[in-house]
This record gives sequence, C-alpha cells and structure tokens, in this order.
Amino acid sequence: MNLILLSPEDIENHRLARVRDPRRLAHLREVHRARPGDTLTLGIAGGALGRGELLTLDDDEACFDVSALDQPPPPALPVHLVLALPRPRMLARSLEHVTALGVKQITLLNTRRVEKSYWQSPELDDEKIHRHLVLGLEQARDTRLPEVTLAKGFRPFVEDRLPGLLAGRRGLVAHPGMPDDCPRGLDEPALLLVGPEGGFIPWEVERLLEAGCQGIHLGPRILRVETAVTVLLARLS
Amino acid sequence: MNLILLSPEDIENHRLARVRDPRRLAHLREVHRARPGDTLTLGIAGGALGRGELLTLDDDEACFDVSALDQPPPPALPVHLVLALPRPRMLARSLEHVTALGVKQITLLNTRRVEKSYWQSPELDDEKIHRHLVLGLEQARDTRLPEVTLAKGFRPFVEDRLPGLLAGRRGLVAHPGMPDDCPRGLDEPALLLVGPEGGFIPWEVERLLEAGCQGIHLGPRILRVETAVTVLLARLS
Repeated sequence: MNLILLSPEDIENHRLARVRDPRRLAHLREVHRARPGDTLTLGIAGGALGRGELLTLDDDEACFDVSALDQPPPPALPVHLVLALPRPRMLARSLEHVTALGVKQITLLNTRRVEKSYWQSPELDDEKIHRHLVLGLEQARDTRLPEVTLAKGFRPFVEDRLPGLLAGRRGLVAHPGMPDDCPRGLDEPALLLVGPEGGFIPWEVERLLEAGCQGIHLGPRILRVETAVTVLLARLS
Repeated sequence: MNLILLSPEDIENHRLARVRDPRRLAHLREVHRARPGDTLTLGIAGGALGRGELLTLDDDEACFDVSALDQPPPPALPVHLVLALPRPRMLARSLEHVTALGVKQITLLNTRRVEKSYWQSPELDDEKIHRHLVLGLEQARDTRLPEVTLAKGFRPFVEDRLPGLLAGRRGLVAHPGMPDDCPRGLDEPALLLVGPEGGFIPWEVERLLEAGCQGIHLGPRILRVETAVTVLLARLS
C-alpha cells in the first residue's frame, strides 16, 4: 500500500478523510507503523494525490488532512487489454499487475481454450475484481480505477464489439509465430489481445486478423500469459 | 512444459532418450496426452532442440528418438541480474520468470531490507532452485540453465565482486527517483541490480552509483519487484 486510496464518500468538506475498514487500518498500524503527525501518500479515487497528515488513529478510524492533495495521478497506459479469461488465481494476480502498469480498460474474453469452469469462479464477482484493482492502484500510486468488461462469447465479441473498439485504436494480437515483432514505445492508442495458456486456436487468430488486427510475437520464447502480458505492456509503453 | 528437457545422461548413442521421473511422465500422459508415434518438442540440457518422436510410453518410462534434434536454443539475454533476495514464494516465481525470459546469470543479494529469515528458506536449496530453473526452461523452450549465485553480504559483494562484474558490462541500478529512464533495446551486456520490496536504502544506492552503476527508473508508478523485473528485462531486450 504505497498510497492510501480514499473514496469520495470518505471525505468531509474537502479537508478531512476518515478510513474505517479493517484492512487499511491494520496496514497503517502494522506496515506503516503510522502515528498522528506522520505524513503519508494519499489519493482520492478518480482524483488527485499528494502527501497528507494523519491527524488521529484509533481502533476504529484513521483521520487524515487531505487539503494538500493537488498532484495528478500518473499517466494512464493508452492500451485496452483484451485478455482470454485466465484461471482464477492467475486472474487475481493479472488484474493487480495490469492495473499497476496503468491499463484502464480490461476486457476478459472467452476463447476456445478457456476452461468453462473459470466463468463460474467467485473471483469474477464485482467486489473481488474491485479489490484486486484497488490493490493495483495502491501499489502503483494511481487513483483511477480500470473498467473491467466480461465478453463471454468470442464470436459476439468479434462481430459486435471489436469493430467499435478498433475505431481509433491499433489492434494487436499477440500470438507465437505471427509475422511482426511487438512494436516498442507505441505513441497511439492500442487494443492488445492476448490468448489463454495454450494460445488462441487458428480460427480465432484468423477472425482477429480479418477484423483488422495485426499479428505480433515476442520471439521464440513461449512465455506464461502473466509474463507475456507484462512484457507486451512494457514494450508498448 | 512446452519442451521436454533431457539431461545428457538420459541419452543413449545420440539416438534414444529415456525419461523416468514421475513429474514428466505424468505431464506427458495428462497434459500432452502423448501416445507412441507423436512428435514433441525435445531439448538436451545445454544443447540442441527440435522435434522428436515418442517411441514408447509406459508407467515407468517414456522413450524418445532424439536423432533429429538440431536447432540451437533461443538466444540468451545478455543481462546478469542481481536481485535482492525476495520472499521465498516470490523467489520461486521470479526464478521461473527470469529464466523463461532468457537470463543466464542470477545473483541473489542481501540488502538491508531483505528479511534475515529469507536466507534460511528451503527454497534456496540447490535442488529447489534447480527445479524452478528447469520449469522456466521448459516454459520458454530453452535448454541452457542459468547460473545462480548467492551473495549474502552487501558490502563484500560491492567491494570484492562488483568491480569484476562491471568489467565489460554496463551497470544499471533500478530504483525509483533515479535520474534516467530505463534504456530500451540495449545492445551491450548489462548488469541489472534490483532492490527488495521497499527498495535499496540510500546508502546502498550510493555505493552502487560510486562503483560505476547508472541509476535508472521506470516512471512514477511503484511496481512490485516481480513486475518491475519483467518490465526492466522487456525494455532492455
């Protein structure tokens, strides 16, 4: 927790914020070993961040002075990530990683090699997803939550949603054996599609290329999806 | 297991290889659903790789024809990674990731913010380390094992070993707030130093800079060590 992320409803009169949830109170006490008078990095969900003073801390509440929060959050990564739904434990970690890296739009996609059972995972509950996004923001000192969308059918996604997503964005399908190397330091918005462990099936790759996406690769090494996503975002940014 | 990694002692007359360990036998049966006559990607530790035929498979042994293995392993990443010893679970994962990414030299370093107890972890046993390196090679279809060295003292490392490591390598210390952005597509050998969660302490950064390393950063986002290492290697390569 490199940032205490405050929701707008925590804040009174633009000046005081009260934190009452046990997770953050425990972290303030045990990791930060915070005491009244300390200044900590604070941010307001969707808004500014900066240093703020801890005024009081007891078993039920921490109260901060937020009047000096005036810095913008770090720039977002202009990449909409379309990720084949990973296995639940990996999903949790991937949401944190890509949020920390600054992705603001995430679509979780069904593909042939996504196990059906993954769609029933409790990790897909709104509240669980939200928790992982918040952990990613707290890690990276960001305040702007990504938007997560579920696309439970590959064909409806490609036919109904992909054309709109590709308007104004460069589409990139990451898949081993594609002709082009992953571009570096992209200076335009991108839609990045990453398959599941085992990859997209050839029919899926064909549909994505037909829709106007460019096939890119990361070289001869086959990487875990988790590693590949981080490498792709690091190269594109 | 995108590659069946064979040790030289598994091989008879440059032609047949016998695999007998339960982990790989189970994987062949359950994940690959392999049957005699199938061709699989095989590699010889430290040597060539290619496609080879599964000749027989029973409860105790898989036997492969390795006579057609003639491709070189993927290029190594010319980066010697010096990583502050991570917590045990993270160590296991990091060894796999960086091996998959092609790093061939890994030094695990003690720093002020490394918890003493981490040095007692069974994850540091040679055999455990070897297992994670093999998992990384199998993932990335590589055959050349990285070399892992433990540096249990920061000062002896800096005084006795760092000068030799920096001969012929560009030294890079990744640390938030350093002046330079991480270089991209480095075309020379590098020594990359990455601190623990919480970072190097200022005294450590000073020693590393004095020794001739360049301080680099990844922007305003604070990343987990695991993510930061992958991002750094992706940018450098």
